[in-house]
Amino acid sequence: MTSAASPAADDSRFGRDRKVSLMGPLPLDCGAELSPVELAYESYGTLNADASNAVLVCHALTGDQYVASEHPVTGKPGWWARLVGPGKPVDTDHFCVICVNVIGSCMGSSGPATINPATDAPWGMDFPVITIADMVRAQALLLDHLGIEKLAAVVGGSMGGMQALSWPVLFPDRVQASLVIASAARHSAQNIAFHEVGRQAIMADPRWRGGAYYADGDAPASGLAVARMAAHITYLSEAGLTEKFGRRLQDRDAKSFGFDADFQVESYLRHQGISFVDRFDANSYLYITRAMDYFDLADQGDGSLAQALGRAKARFCLISFDTDWLYPTAESRRIVHALNAAGAEASFVELSSPFGHDAFLLENPEMDRVVSGFLGNGGEV
Amino acid sequence: MTSAASPAADDSRFGRDRKVSLMGPLPLDCGAELSPVELAYESYGTLNADASNAVLVCHALTGDQYVASEHPVTGKPGWWARLVGPGKPVDTDHFCVICVNVIGSCMGSSGPATINPATDAPWGMDFPVITIADMVRAQALLLDHLGIEKLAAVVGGSMGGMQALSWPVLFPDRVQASLVIASAARHSAQNIAFHEVGRQAIMADPRWRGGAYYADGDAPASGLAVARMAAHITYLSEAGLTEKFGRRLQDRDAKSFGFDADFQVESYLRHQGISFVDRFDANSYLYITRAMDYFDLADQGDGSLAQALGRAKARFCLISFDTDWLYPTAESRRIVHALNAAGAEASFVELSSPFGHDAFLLENPEMDRVVSGFLGNGGEV
Repeated sequence: MTSAASPAADDSRFGRDRKVSLMGPLPLDCGAELSPVELAYESYGTLNADASNAVLVCHALTGDQYVASEHPVTGKPGWWARLVGPGKPVDTDHFCVICVNVIGSCMGSSGPATINPATDAPWGMDFPVITIADMVRAQALLLDHLGIEKLAAVVGGSMGGMQALSWPVLFPDRVQASLVIASAARHSAQNIAFHEVGRQAIMADPRWRGGAYYADGDAPASGLAVARMAAHITYLSEAGLTEKFGRRLQDRDAKSFGFDADFQVESYLRHQGISFVDRFDANSYLYITRAMDYFDLADQGDGSLAQALGRAKARFCLISFDTDWLYPTAESRRIVHALNAAGAEASFVELSSPFGHDAFLLENPEMDRVVSGFLGNGGEV
Repeated sequence: MTSAASPAADDSRFGRDRKVSLMGPLPLDCGAELSPVELAYESYGTLNADASNAVLVCHALTGDQYVASEHPVTGKPGWWARLVGPGKPVDTDHFCVICVNVIGSCMGSSGPATINPATDAPWGMDFPVITIADMVRAQALLLDHLGIEKLAAVVGGSMGGMQALSWPVLFPDRVQASLVIASAARHSAQNIAFHEVGRQAIMADPRWRGGAYYADGDAPASGLAVARMAAHITYLSEAGLTEKFGRRLQDRDAKSFGFDADFQVESYLRHQGISFVDRFDANSYLYITRAMDYFDLADQGDGSLAQALGRAKARFCLISFDTDWLYPTAESRRIVHALNAAGAEASFVELSSPFGHDAFLLENPEMDRVVSGFLGNGGEV
């Protein structure tokens, strides 16, 4: 770890569209080592003199480092621009916020689409299978590079929450506060089952070709779109779908008696599938879903979640949503019980929302209050 | 309708592996007419002299007429052999039980794989899009052929329940009792969404070829397997999956750090997908899911479910399962409220089971008692 040093205002390590190639090597849970470790990231706000105001935001399965910046492919605002920025709940006037593309992903960090130094060609399925802990260790490498010894906080929703939860367990002395939103300490059988459907859909696409589709760019878009459609259903609640679409027909007065998208919900899902393939790599989808399925934080404590969490020295805050059936409140409560058993400082709130798992990405003033309340005391600024 | 006549014991219209081609024509909801109407069916027990002891059992999406007979492809016992037979809750010592393969399906009744008389080739996607009501009207044609004017009861689970619910609305004078298990009066947005994922998975398989795969028999097995996997998750409860599989690994002491089926639940799902394609036609899957998505019984009552059900003269019994999230108890309750509003005789019971929607196919002594209690008074034998 490099020692913390006050970065100059023009420090090229900070800012938008940053990318660094670190030699590591990064030892992975599978036994392999990754070197170099390419890391693409964004930072917002200014690191203070003693580098004590850094907040790491961790992204979800199909998220990226553009937490509060326009997405370079879709042109859409950052996925948490509502939450991260000047005067916002994660206040970049006070914090230096960093968001790193996870390894295994496809927005610039090492993953199946990046170059395998051994072959000078894209890794494809030769990329090592990675875990949530590997993603976290790669982020720690980046913090070393940035001169950040200790995080004021780590924040994440969904898979980002798995990283936020893992950080204080893997690096007890490097995190002061962990904010875990709509997440889980392990993947359930049903979670794994949905991911497996998505993987099989991708692998069933003849254009997948064992992952070796980068040379001609003819990617398994159909399989990836189906995977995204299946996953998308799990992000929404039954009640939310009913409220949003019900049985309403799409641009038609009556049923077509055909196989076009008659219902609005069909049209919506098809759009979700088709637009996803423009911005995401199918192999990355395989690798990241695998990492999530492998995730069981109790593995860090000889099978005991409380023992794993007992290593942490951070304060914790957990938020769940009442209609989230992907990572339901019961799972957050299980984590809180383990934190209590471990003697950790933990607060927990279940928020009400009709939007299911997706609620963590949507406008929710109550969530904003909880986030700013929790971080407000933890920034040491 | 032909008049009821006592069938001789050797009446070839009754028995196993029956098939008939009726000229109809059968007017369909889409506006087309089907002629001939091929119907494959099984019967169990003996029709009495006044043909008053007939019970029609309606099968689910991927079910078939082999309700209490060995399946000709898989060699497995009938899907409701537990419930239908001599001395069983649907007692073939008392009732003449008939089960017909629905039109649109692939076990002998008219569907995309049967011959289009206009071309002398398989229909493929030229087969007209059918509805649950069309399936019911085709069954009524068969009853005419069998000399059965009135059913002692119609019984069905899941999609079979949709038919059982529709029968007394479409043919008020032909049904005395309707038993609807684990079913719904309409498909919700979430139900439609899951089906749409399955259809997109099939259509994304290049071997689907617009449904014209019968000539070389190279069917879209990969797409159909993915569709089945996605659907299968909805048949099981989260708790049931956790109990059955949890995060247990498959034939391994540790994670493989690869993409084989590491977890038992992955292996199970893959098996469900692969074994399904041996017995089911992908185009039939498209047509039947479409029929289910189109189903909203309120359409028969100008948008009012109570008005639709008001036409019925039958007694009703509804059974739901507490862990069924595909067709949850709330939906059965909604039907019962509409039946009450319509002044119909209706009983309702929610049974407890850890097995989700699949519970209706599994051993459940309480369900047996409800079924035999309800039918015991309705057989007029």
